[in-house]
Amino acid sequence: MKHEQRPNFAVIGTRPPRFDAAEKATGQARFGPDTDLPRLLHGKVLRSPHAHARILSIDTRRAAAYPGVYAVITAADLPANASLASGEGEVDTGLKYRCDNTLAGDKVLYAGHPIAAVAASDPHTAEQAVRLIEVEYERLPAVMDVLDAMREDAPLLHENLRTRSLAGTSETPSNVASHSQFLKGDPERGFAEADVIVERAFRTATVHHNYLEPHATTATWGPDGVLTVYPTTQGAFGCRDQIARLLCYPMSKIRVVPTEVGGAFGGKSTSYLDSLAALLSRKAGRPVKMVMTRAETLLGTGPTPGTAIRVKIGARADGRITAAQAELCYEAGAYPGATLWGGMGVVLAAYDIPHGQIDGYDVVVNKPKTVTYRAPGATPPVFAVEQVVDELAEKVGMDPIAFRLLNRAREGTRRVNGSTHSSVSSREVLEAVQAHPHYSAASGGPHRGRGVAYGHWGNHGGVSSCTLGINPDGTVSLVTGSVDVSGTRTSLAMQAAETLGLPLDRIRPSVGDTDSVGYTQASVGSRTTVSTGMAVATAAREAIAQMRARAAALWDLPPEAVSYRMGTFAAKQDDSLQMTFAELAAQLPRTGGAITAVGNVNVREVGGSFGAHIVDVEVDPETGKVTILRYTAVQDVGRAVHPGEVEGQMQGAVVQGIGWALYEGYAYDEQGELLNPTLLDYKLPTALDVPSIETVIVEVPYPKHLYGVRGVGETPIMPPPAAIANAIYRAVGVRVYELPMTPGRILQAMGVI
Amino acid sequence: MKHEQRPNFAVIGTRPPRFDAAEKATGQARFGPDTDLPRLLHGKVLRSPHAHARILSIDTRRAAAYPGVYAVITAADLPANASLASGEGEVDTGLKYRCDNTLAGDKVLYAGHPIAAVAASDPHTAEQAVRLIEVEYERLPAVMDVLDAMREDAPLLHENLRTRSLAGTSETPSNVASHSQFLKGDPERGFAEADVIVERAFRTATVHHNYLEPHATTATWGPDGVLTVYPTTQGAFGCRDQIARLLCYPMSKIRVVPTEVGGAFGGKSTSYLDSLAALLSRKAGRPVKMVMTRAETLLGTGPTPGTAIRVKIGARADGRITAAQAELCYEAGAYPGATLWGGMGVVLAAYDIPHGQIDGYDVVVNKPKTVTYRAPGATPPVFAVEQVVDELAEKVGMDPIAFRLLNRAREGTRRVNGSTHSSVSSREVLEAVQAHPHYSAASGGPHRGRGVAYGHWGNHGGVSSCTLGINPDGTVSLVTGSVDVSGTRTSLAMQAAETLGLPLDRIRPSVGDTDSVGYTQASVGSRTTVSTGMAVATAAREAIAQMRARAAALWDLPPEAVSYRMGTFAAKQDDSLQMTFAELAAQLPRTGGAITAVGNVNVREVGGSFGAHIVDVEVDPETGKVTILRYTAVQDVGRAVHPGEVEGQMQGAVVQGIGWALYEGYAYDEQGELLNPTLLDYKLPTALDVPSIETVIVEVPYPKHLYGVRGVGETPIMPPPAAIANAIYRAVGVRVYELPMTPGRILQAMGVI
Repeated sequence: MKHEQRPNFAVIGTRPPRFDAAEKATGQARFGPDTDLPRLLHGKVLRSPHAHARILSIDTRRAAAYPGVYAVITAADLPANASLASGEGEVDTGLKYRCDNTLAGDKVLYAGHPIAAVAASDPHTAEQAVRLIEVEYERLPAVMDVLDAMREDAPLLHENLRTRSLAGTSETPSNVASHSQFLKGDPERGFAEADVIVERAFRTATVHHNYLEPHATTATWGPDGVLTVYPTTQGAFGCRDQIARLLCYPMSKIRVVPTEVGGAFGGKSTSYLDSLAALLSRKAGRPVKMVMTRAETLLGTGPTPGTAIRVKIGARADGRITAAQAELCYEAGAYPGATLWGGMGVVLAAYDIPHGQIDGYDVVVNKPKTVTYRAPGATPPVFAVEQVVDELAEKVGMDPIAFRLLNRAREGTRRVNGSTHSSVSSREVLEAVQAHPHYSAASGGPHRGRGVAYGHWGNHGGVSSCTLGINPDGTVSLVTGSVDVSGTRTSLAMQAAETLGLPLDRIRPSVGDTDSVGYTQASVGSRTTVSTGMAVATAAREAIAQMRARAAALWDLPPEAVSYRMGTFAAKQDDSLQMTFAELAAQLPRTGGAITAVGNVNVREVGGSFGAHIVDVEVDPETGKVTILRYTAVQDVGRAVHPGEVEGQMQGAVVQGIGWALYEGYAYDEQGELLNPTLLDYKLPTALDVPSIETVIVEVPYPKHLYGVRGVGETPIMPPPAAIANAIYRAVGVRVYELPMTPGRILQAMGVI
Repeated sequence: MKHEQRPNFAVIGTRPPRFDAAEKATGQARFGPDTDLPRLLHGKVLRSPHAHARILSIDTRRAAAYPGVYAVITAADLPANASLASGEGEVDTGLKYRCDNTLAGDKVLYAGHPIAAVAASDPHTAEQAVRLIEVEYERLPAVMDVLDAMREDAPLLHENLRTRSLAGTSETPSNVASHSQFLKGDPERGFAEADVIVERAFRTATVHHNYLEPHATTATWGPDGVLTVYPTTQGAFGCRDQIARLLCYPMSKIRVVPTEVGGAFGGKSTSYLDSLAALLSRKAGRPVKMVMTRAETLLGTGPTPGTAIRVKIGARADGRITAAQAELCYEAGAYPGATLWGGMGVVLAAYDIPHGQIDGYDVVVNKPKTVTYRAPGATPPVFAVEQVVDELAEKVGMDPIAFRLLNRAREGTRRVNGSTHSSVSSREVLEAVQAHPHYSAASGGPHRGRGVAYGHWGNHGGVSSCTLGINPDGTVSLVTGSVDVSGTRTSLAMQAAETLGLPLDRIRPSVGDTDSVGYTQASVGSRTTVSTGMAVATAAREAIAQMRARAAALWDLPPEAVSYRMGTFAAKQDDSLQMTFAELAAQLPRTGGAITAVGNVNVREVGGSFGAHIVDVEVDPETGKVTILRYTAVQDVGRAVHPGEVEGQMQGAVVQGIGWALYEGYAYDEQGELLNPTLLDYKLPTALDVPSIETVIVEVPYPKHLYGVRGVGETPIMPPPAAIANAIYRAVGVRVYELPMTPGRILQAMGVI
């Protein structure tokens, strides 16, 4: 489906094989754990068994003396701790939290909290030595739930944490790190104008990305003081930033060489092991590799916030929304900074809300520090709002898509957070749903139902760099600063080929290390194909401009007298003067030297992306089991550079959304011990649980991107839980307000149990 | 000694520790043989035992079937051979020779000529398998000496090789690949004007660089078709070029990652093993490492040409040279292309020759294909000319330095090869010799003598690239395309620091791979500190320009209203607006994106370098043993970026020149078998043979280089053999016209034996 006549692109819009396909298909791609270096040591981490405890003492002597052990470190070895201790003036709380989360200081705040690390000749020796570290704890009561943690009598995680809000900073300590608020218009008046009001309370679970590859890193601290790190990360530069801060070490002496990444989804922007491996390597004088187990990944790295959300929306009898109110309570985990910003940004963003209020609470609990996960913070509020909207549509007697078309955000709509929508494709997306055969197909049979949900994600731009080198044989080496977590080597090379007017096989893209390319933010926020694409296009245009100047010099013409089109330079006024890209490339070194064009961008404006999903489910009324019968995802992607990759992003996100909807969640006991730290106990959707996901690509080109590209990967994780909840309602007449919507909860809602 | 007032440099001219010092001092630097990769195989080469033979058959079946063997290749596997065979029109002879030298086709042309290669699980298995390859030879008579090879009845190496000369191409095949000639004025008339004429014939031996580290490479051919090679090389891009040609493979799919280099001196610009390892890796589907033994390095890689040189110079009684003639016969080794151009360029270059003629012959013999070695081709003719000049000075009764001062090349002197001298420092260098205490010290005692010699090397410029990235903490990552064979990371970082106005510790230089930086020619021709230095200065100036623009934007000023000096940006009209480099660096990503400045240059004009040496020797009249008592090297280096490194270059070159003078040379038997393929039998100067070399740095800045830098490393290898020969003459009254000047040859000249 195309909403705009496709321009005559040669490369963009085609489906070439991915550059990383062969290596990955044959098992030869080198992921984080595959790094091997001579004299490699192996590191392991001692983690807290307790969710909340004071550390009275740590004795590492037996571990250090254990044969085969080369180094042991604790929080005392972290240079930033020394720097914080010696610092004058205000303490950098963010850095202190980061230190404490890397290696616990005086307290452990979650089961899995790192306390010490060991480097040894092999992983088993390191594990054995970790067990020899003696820690004396004073156990403290744990608080595992956001609403419990907000109570005045809750156990406090941080004795100095005070609530920041518009009203200032609270006098007494609290687990609530902040209370934020957006207000538009007069919600009270808006609700007064409403004929129907629906207000519901929702809960969502703590879930984890569960990327296939666990966290892994290898660090080697050279005698010249250069630290080289090979992490599995979404961003080499961000990783370097974090290491530099924790180690108080100059960035120029830290070289981060990213490996292939076996899944990330936002979870590999945080550096956990890298500084530990670096310090162990410095102490041991040898390279150190550290690889987490699955349990360590679940226990010791950031999941999403569990949330408690309350949504209230009012509408007139004609369906027009008059007011909306949302309260978002987010578990930050052990340290402040839940992805509340994502939730508050998304919760009412897809609609035109005349009067609205959003309140957000960032609350610490005794769980791992949460991190970003694909559309960070956004899936829970969409689960909430899209059910309330569905109820409202039903109450006013409207088709759910028609209701959304009526109330959708449009060009110029001012959001509750004060920003204004632009380049909006809500109509195109919703109409694509209406027009899709799935939407009008018979839903067929008892206990079956169809649900829809809809959402908007703003996407991110940011800082990207690339270097584009013209080789003497006319091939092109493209180095980008963006780690490839989703096939972006291919989508970036395609934009280079399109801009250069060359076939794709002339381009070889690769991911640079922090020495070889300019500062580039991590591959997050659906930004890589968009922003690094802009960097690539900038560099490609610059390369052509330089090449035109060289051709002009060879022909003794001014640069503007030379044209370039699809691989051929030509003198505008003289047909006999022509040169192919490859012919000119061969002459570059000997004319003015090589041409390496750099693209450095900070993209401030990007196109948001609307998505709407249709799902058919069947609910087994006896067991509560939900079967997904059919699933269709519709999304505006601006321009699909590589439609196959776009479809893959949409399908992958829907599968993860299905996991949130039906299966996933951390289960803790009362003491805060995680009961399901393995993939046997933590249920993920498998191929048996998921039908083939149909995709519909809508293309409303974003006018400020050279190729109209919008971010793709995040929007499609938001609608599935809500769409499935709405489908369950249509199937069995009950609504479930808590994720995951397990068979037990469905049977409870149905009154069966 | 300074010939010009030193400008007020902050970094240039200081002696900081080298960036590579700690890694190398602690043995942790990774040289070619240190590469290790998972599943690594080891390759070995089958080499010809014969100096000249036709290959009747090669049977690799037993080797291929040997347990632990993964791949065997012969010339038939070289893609360029297939391409040449299928090619239409004229055959690319250069490529054909390169193919044949990589893996012999129908003939072997020297003992050590590669015939096949094997990859196996370990080096010993590979060696064993190599022995199982059965080759049937038809032996042919070998020709080992340039003058023998030039005879009409000499055995022919190449049946199709014909002599190219100004007169055209010869009708009959010959071992003489070319005869070149430079002519200036009328030599006959010049000699007629002479009062004294000296004409002598000289021979010089085939010598090898004998870098400490043998040739080594590791290649891994990924399933995505990307070939990554980790060679010990002087130039990553040149290595890539050679691989691309031999494998007919696109450059973009070849990534060359240079290792540290354990000595090169021109011998590691040629790729021997890389294409073999690549093909073995492709066949085996695993990485393959190949490391030569010392014997393989001597037998199978390029030494210098052995030469026969005749020099005739005439002078008036007042000492003024009237004419000069030189005939240079150079052994190319098995394939045409001796470093004759270097010899012809240098032979008469240091003098003002009114009438001159230079004839050069490039002659194939059954020795390994020769390659460049520090001032390629230049040491033999300087050995010849500087003895003849010494004789002339004596005959006209002049001090040898005064004679050279009289006849020295000056600004504007037209050379015999037609080029014109510019930025000449011959006077400064010769006067520095005259003024040096060594020159006027008593030479003391019987059988002792003092010699001088002098020479000029033009140096090379060429194509260089670098990328200079500003890190957010104000440090700078400098990636250059130049492999560091002589401490150039330090000399380049110093030029970056000087240009950026920053302390050196803010810069971290590294050597890029072929993906991460622009095309850069190899580290040869004393070009790296000069030309890559220009690239670095270009990039640094560009970075500052971009940063000024950013500061201006932050202050809402035009860029020209912002000044930069020694680490501080300031508004010219407003004292209150100041920002340090680091403060601005922190703001770069979030303003217009990163700043990565590229420097791409093709340096066409560089400053040549004059050098003059003084040596005192003692000759044992009974054994002929020469002891070097004192050695002083004087040289103009334009500007010593790092005087310690400059002194090291001068001292190292003198030691190598002493080796040429007294010890080194390939010894062959009549069948062309090398008798001394080990460092036990091939004598190199040791610490016991060499006194501390005194150095005098003369600085006549080269005006077209930003910092006045001239090349350093090559000039000082040229004078030692001649200076020592002249000293021997002063010590014992005889001249030796053949290198090396062994005790036997000295005793022979003395009539003792």
